[in-house]
Amino acid sequence: MSVALPFPLAISLGDPAGIGPEVIAKCWDNRDRFELPPFVAIGEPRSVSAVWDGPLAIIDDPREADSAFDVGLPLIQIRSPDDDQPGHPSVAGAHCSLDALEIAVGLARSGSAAAVVTGPVSKEQLYSIGFQHPGQTEFVAERCGIAASNVVMMMAGPTLRTVPITTHIALRDVPDSLTSSLIESRARTTLRGLQRSFGIAEPKIAITGLNPHAGEGGMLGQAEIEVIEPAIAALRAEGWRVTGPHPADTLFHESARAAYDAAVCMYHDQALIPVKALHFTDTVNITLGLPIVRTAPDHGTAFDIAGQDRADPRPMAAAIRLAGNCAAHRSTAA
Amino acid sequence: MSVALPFPLAISLGDPAGIGPEVIAKCWDNRDRFELPPFVAIGEPRSVSAVWDGPLAIIDDPREADSAFDVGLPLIQIRSPDDDQPGHPSVAGAHCSLDALEIAVGLARSGSAAAVVTGPVSKEQLYSIGFQHPGQTEFVAERCGIAASNVVMMMAGPTLRTVPITTHIALRDVPDSLTSSLIESRARTTLRGLQRSFGIAEPKIAITGLNPHAGEGGMLGQAEIEVIEPAIAALRAEGWRVTGPHPADTLFHESARAAYDAAVCMYHDQALIPVKALHFTDTVNITLGLPIVRTAPDHGTAFDIAGQDRADPRPMAAAIRLAGNCAAHRSTAA
Repeated sequence: MSVALPFPLAISLGDPAGIGPEVIAKCWDNRDRFELPPFVAIGEPRSVSAVWDGPLAIIDDPREADSAFDVGLPLIQIRSPDDDQPGHPSVAGAHCSLDALEIAVGLARSGSAAAVVTGPVSKEQLYSIGFQHPGQTEFVAERCGIAASNVVMMMAGPTLRTVPITTHIALRDVPDSLTSSLIESRARTTLRGLQRSFGIAEPKIAITGLNPHAGEGGMLGQAEIEVIEPAIAALRAEGWRVTGPHPADTLFHESARAAYDAAVCMYHDQALIPVKALHFTDTVNITLGLPIVRTAPDHGTAFDIAGQDRADPRPMAAAIRLAGNCAAHRSTAA
Repeated sequence: MSVALPFPLAISLGDPAGIGPEVIAKCWDNRDRFELPPFVAIGEPRSVSAVWDGPLAIIDDPREADSAFDVGLPLIQIRSPDDDQPGHPSVAGAHCSLDALEIAVGLARSGSAAAVVTGPVSKEQLYSIGFQHPGQTEFVAERCGIAASNVVMMMAGPTLRTVPITTHIALRDVPDSLTSSLIESRARTTLRGLQRSFGIAEPKIAITGLNPHAGEGGMLGQAEIEVIEPAIAALRAEGWRVTGPHPADTLFHESARAAYDAAVCMYHDQALIPVKALHFTDTVNITLGLPIVRTAPDHGTAFDIAGQDRADPRPMAAAIRLAGNCAAHRSTAA
């Protein structure tokens, strides 16, 4: 059974030439099996009909989505002047994907949608039309009035959630980018996110070391002693349940995972390798630190397979399901 | 069924106060269930009897191990002047663990043992008696006449094998430690090891990037372009089947793993996180580039739980089984 929500989820289709329309339509097809709550898609209707034979339920207001959901895939339409072909991105399609994102976020901000799920966009295409943000996450943060530096990317799979403290920077730049205050700030956002969006009253996080064996008492690096341990001490002093710094290689097996609700990691691969090794088809990207719930599947537009009925809808289904669950936790708490 | 070998495996007990004696004895107890080939343990007999009620079969020559194996745990004994207690390491115990290692390697070098499995030692204790090597691996390499810098540590689990190019150094020092020639040399040792010890005639390896998304075309670091790609090109020019540089976060899920026999990774955690997340109880450390087969369980002495009948024998069983399989591949090839 899916969760009961007062409003539908808003899902932007992403780039109309990518696999977004296909996987979202397949999610509607399999809404019962995937246990998905009602949602409304936002985007260009032809991008869906080009790859899917099912019924669209064109609506104007998210309040219609609930009743329309049994009839067809509810869609708030954005009309593109061009007829985008799957696999062939265009400027018009980029505008379309940005408009869909804008509307989806607006609906969630205004309370007309319970959460936002963002379909995959092409950053290259968005940059070509003047998009000023590194990615959708930063755009959503800005539209919510939150500095992009204050939101946290969590990768959430069924048995493991991880957060990278630094994200898309060269590995060489990681050690000097880590400060105690950055670790504290990311950890606090993670802990509050576990409370608000996951309904965990007393969340537990495990923080990794930077170096092999968490530095082995300073033999293999100083970051643990100089930067990470002080951050952990400060968080504990505030009453949070925090352990570490843990050697990262022994933190992700089954019995280790049972001891925490999220692992806070020092850099991109340290956080993403374990969750994707364990949960490749159902790892969800969720943005913490926002006033709204926002999730996304952890894949791109995959232009190379668009329109071939080959795209796997499970990552999108996982993103929709998690958005619904998080929205339910928030509405219960509110 | 276990593999048929012309000689038994030689297993050093490791530190007599650690869990080595217990897990090796438990392996003998469960030799049929774990499908283990005949082996002979080398070490202090009292360290085994202190933690295990089963029968010891004290022998002088490994050739006796085969017939003794059905009667008791075959043991070539080293007598320690002290009576070591589980959990309480001593100087005498450190000497004992070093003598056992020396004998086990000697037996394999001389051809009287099919392979060496090394039980866990305390580096701290070994250093206190003047041990000059960073660990057992370097000692074994030296005794085999191989420079320690030319051997490769592989972590082998049932569905994933990984090799770290750099190992026990601070993460900060990784980028400048990576050179094309180091990557080529480690990759070649890995490829030849897959041929000789794993019986894979045309091995395939996948090489990771250093940076997030393998550098994203230079946007997130230059190591892929300047260091890793030239190494891959050189290896391919020699006829080896090598792919990469791959983004490390998408290289370890089930279908990705099916495309290679080993993943060659840039640093410790990149290699060890995925294999230990997937295969914590049966990841084996195997040293490639030696004239003999040498494996070890991927755990330490665990002095804190020694003598409490709590140690899990599965990692040691996996190390014994893999040593047997690799020795069989080598004897077939020879």
